[in-house]
Amino acid sequence: MHPLTQYVRSIPDFPKPGIIFRDIVPLIENPVALKLAIETLKEAVEPWGPFDKIAAPEARGFIFAAPLAIQLNAGLAPMRKPGKLPFKTVSIDYSLEYGVNSIEMHEDTIKSGDRVLLLDDLLATGGTINACRKLIERQGGIVKGAAFIIELVDLKGRDTLGDLPVFAPVQFEGE
Amino acid sequence: MHPLTQYVRSIPDFPKPGIIFRDIVPLIENPVALKLAIETLKEAVEPWGPFDKIAAPEARGFIFAAPLAIQLNAGLAPMRKPGKLPFKTVSIDYSLEYGVNSIEMHEDTIKSGDRVLLLDDLLATGGTINACRKLIERQGGIVKGAAFIIELVDLKGRDTLGDLPVFAPVQFEGE
Repeated sequence: MHPLTQYVRSIPDFPKPGIIFRDIVPLIENPVALKLAIETLKEAVEPWGPFDKIAAPEARGFIFAAPLAIQLNAGLAPMRKPGKLPFKTVSIDYSLEYGVNSIEMHEDTIKSGDRVLLLDDLLATGGTINACRKLIERQGGIVKGAAFIIELVDLKGRDTLGDLPVFAPVQFEGE
Repeated sequence: MHPLTQYVRSIPDFPKPGIIFRDIVPLIENPVALKLAIETLKEAVEPWGPFDKIAAPEARGFIFAAPLAIQLNAGLAPMRKPGKLPFKTVSIDYSLEYGVNSIEMHEDTIKSGDRVLLLDDLLATGGTINACRKLIERQGGIVKGAAFIIELVDLKGRDTLGDLPVFAPVQFEGE
């Protein structure tokens, strides 16, 4: 068990009955754990680099992507819900565990040939991260890997990413 | 003019006619600018510390608060829109430039006596940051200062923060 695991709080029946929500807030509120999380991610993904952009869906993805981008001398590419970004956007629809959604980025965020790391707090079914990947590749970006803090192993999101390198230090089984 | 200013893109008529939106996305997408932003914030706020928590409203606030928290050996206290946080929450309603809103945090995020820095990307009328401040103080936190990347000077948000130390390197006048 990775030492970061102890900082994740399990909350039953959120957002709906039968779901155990893995709450990352205690981890980010703790200065030691937050720092350890970024160091752990950096060490794991550095061999896949260099990266031009760390791409992260809002909002929890930003929390890990921003410090990691600084550590890796990359920019942060924000992937947002519809209507949040003020400039011209490109978007993609996708289905996720609890419904259907859409994600957007600015049309000039990814330049053709940009080497991109995908980053989010949690890998579940992989719906969100695959949508990000498709949108980035459609813009000419080269996705080099995907990293998370938490992986819900039984939901097999990792399988949906094919042979892309994937890293997640905190793993939960049985849901 | 602070060197960070050149990375902010001005977008007319967003989110509604007559408003010039100051778009911080080009700044965070640029590795040099992102790093400079965090160094600039750190240098300015360090004399107000030490801090136990950097409190930031979602989602753009997270982008600057997370790296700064790591630099300052503090935790990140996420302030979120209703329904996003899975644990027991405390909340506050407030009016903001384009409507009425509510902000929440976990009830155990701020411990009594916690020294807190408020952080967001942009200071406009001050509605959001004052709501964060009240909620934190209600929980026993001690707010030591507020920092932003951008200040819309004419909206006088700074005045609503009284004698609290305020820092914002990029300033726009005339809207």
